[in-house]
Amino acid sequence: MKPSAAETAALFAQIADNAAHAEESMRSDLAATLRGSDPLLAEVLNYALLGGGKRLRPLLTAISSRLCGKGDRQQLRLLAAAFEYLHTATLLHDDVLDHAENRRGRKSVVSQYGTAAAILAGDWLHARSMHLIGALAGPQALEVFCAATAGMVDGEFLQMRCVADPTVTEAHYLAVISKKTAGLISAACAVGALHGQGNSEQLAALTLYGEKIGLSFQIADDLLDYLGDEQATGKKVGNDFAEGKMTLPLIHALSRAEGQDKAELLHSIQGDRHSAACVIVRQVMNNLGSFIYCRQRAEEEMATGLAALSCFTEDNQQENVAILRRLAHYVLSRDR
Amino acid sequence: MKPSAAETAALFAQIADNAAHAEESMRSDLAATLRGSDPLLAEVLNYALLGGGKRLRPLLTAISSRLCGKGDRQQLRLLAAAFEYLHTATLLHDDVLDHAENRRGRKSVVSQYGTAAAILAGDWLHARSMHLIGALAGPQALEVFCAATAGMVDGEFLQMRCVADPTVTEAHYLAVISKKTAGLISAACAVGALHGQGNSEQLAALTLYGEKIGLSFQIADDLLDYLGDEQATGKKVGNDFAEGKMTLPLIHALSRAEGQDKAELLHSIQGDRHSAACVIVRQVMNNLGSFIYCRQRAEEEMATGLAALSCFTEDNQQENVAILRRLAHYVLSRDR
Repeated sequence: MKPSAAETAALFAQIADNAAHAEESMRSDLAATLRGSDPLLAEVLNYALLGGGKRLRPLLTAISSRLCGKGDRQQLRLLAAAFEYLHTATLLHDDVLDHAENRRGRKSVVSQYGTAAAILAGDWLHARSMHLIGALAGPQALEVFCAATAGMVDGEFLQMRCVADPTVTEAHYLAVISKKTAGLISAACAVGALHGQGNSEQLAALTLYGEKIGLSFQIADDLLDYLGDEQATGKKVGNDFAEGKMTLPLIHALSRAEGQDKAELLHSIQGDRHSAACVIVRQVMNNLGSFIYCRQRAEEEMATGLAALSCFTEDNQQENVAILRRLAHYVLSRDR
Repeated sequence: MKPSAAETAALFAQIADNAAHAEESMRSDLAATLRGSDPLLAEVLNYALLGGGKRLRPLLTAISSRLCGKGDRQQLRLLAAAFEYLHTATLLHDDVLDHAENRRGRKSVVSQYGTAAAILAGDWLHARSMHLIGALAGPQALEVFCAATAGMVDGEFLQMRCVADPTVTEAHYLAVISKKTAGLISAACAVGALHGQGNSEQLAALTLYGEKIGLSFQIADDLLDYLGDEQATGKKVGNDFAEGKMTLPLIHALSRAEGQDKAELLHSIQGDRHSAACVIVRQVMNNLGSFIYCRQRAEEEMATGLAALSCFTEDNQQENVAILRRLAHYVLSRDR
């Protein structure tokens, strides 16, 4: 059942509240950790981390920990912030690779401060995040966290391998987005569960929930790349197509297309992928029901993720379960 | 007292033996950890890690652990390899920043596989190294390791700030090389001590030894950049000068030069730093005793490092102390 308008409003308030806490944790951690460091390093890290954002990963860590119930609340905010550190490290390095001019509505770190600053600041964030995870959540959490990081790298390689390759399957796509996106979201939930001293059933449930809403999130994101409102998302529509990224709408369309449609798709993907080609591809996708299919797949993943939460049956767990439920709907319904 | 020829030969055999073990540990860890990963990622990591090298950091971890005496020898090789992972991650990212064509006598990863592969493989190595340290040596070791990583980033920023700046002091130079080089070498010793369950005195002694031979190593390296034999080092002489790096020979010369010498140095540093300028600068340095001064400073650091080992007085510790002593002399006397 979809959340009511009141529930959604409550969720937005929780997201905003959590984001403010996450910013505060990061700001004070940076100030303490960077004492005596180079001022430009501090400036770059503050710029990279404190430019807004919904801070969904720290929120997932916090809610997961509270749901399991035994963690130290003082440490939890800092632990949660470690996920924002790692996520930001990934964005810094991605923006170097993609020569991205902008990020979150302003200049990216690489365009503002240069390649060296972006790579090095990402490395600093890696180290700080892993230290925090190991110190605050223990060796099992560190293993989860480092495996998620290594998985993101592997996902990037898998994706690079298949640029503009029309033979890519849905299974390959799911493997890529599982590693590139869902792994870290799942790790955010799992590390929260470990910090909250959840039992093995709770850990498995939250790990699965995170994995599934991560997949749902990324499928929705890949849909927005074809259907989004550029004004709302702040991202250029058709970016994935232009880069030859084989996302689900395209994979579905290729699997269904025949005759002239198929020829047109193949020609468009393997050509120079200009925006006129994207318009044609979008039309073919629409005719073949690719957007509807993707939407359904995202909803299926979300439903599996929500079903995993059924092990949390205690009355005092229901408030946090409700937040996770609303969050799952939110990541699927967002338009930016 | 300098090691005898026989002692040096014994050290070389130990270095070669350790390097073979480190390669074997890395090879089997990569094979196990990368099962199911993208083949190109595996290829890049194997290329980056298994191209030879003296593996001095893993050797320091192994000897430090054995000196303290209680660690698990099975795990020690893998733990030691984590330092080669982190060191290699740093080289991969450095080579992207410096647009370096070659590394260890063959094409660098960035020139062989491209920027994305070099940055991402470095990130993978970061994550794997931190996981290994946390799992095999505990939270205190992880803190030391992550602080060393963050310190290397800070050192890079400190160094970038002072390119071609003739007002840089020896104290600033020492702060830069302490963070950029000595920190990781010191961490290699400290993590070995922690794995070997050394007491706090032993930990402090090995940490200091590592820091001091790290400084000694880097001062010697910076001397080689002016005085080295290009054939032996495989590196272009005058590289640091061309890049405007303010290393100790230059800082010393600037502090001593007067009149025409001083004017010539300033003009050379702030000009286009072509190789003819480097020849002039080298002549001035020679006249001012800068090379002799640097050599003395490197020897002083080494002596302080060796003095720290005096707490290891047991008979069964002397074999490993002797290796550390020979290693200290080696890093200072090497010509490559």
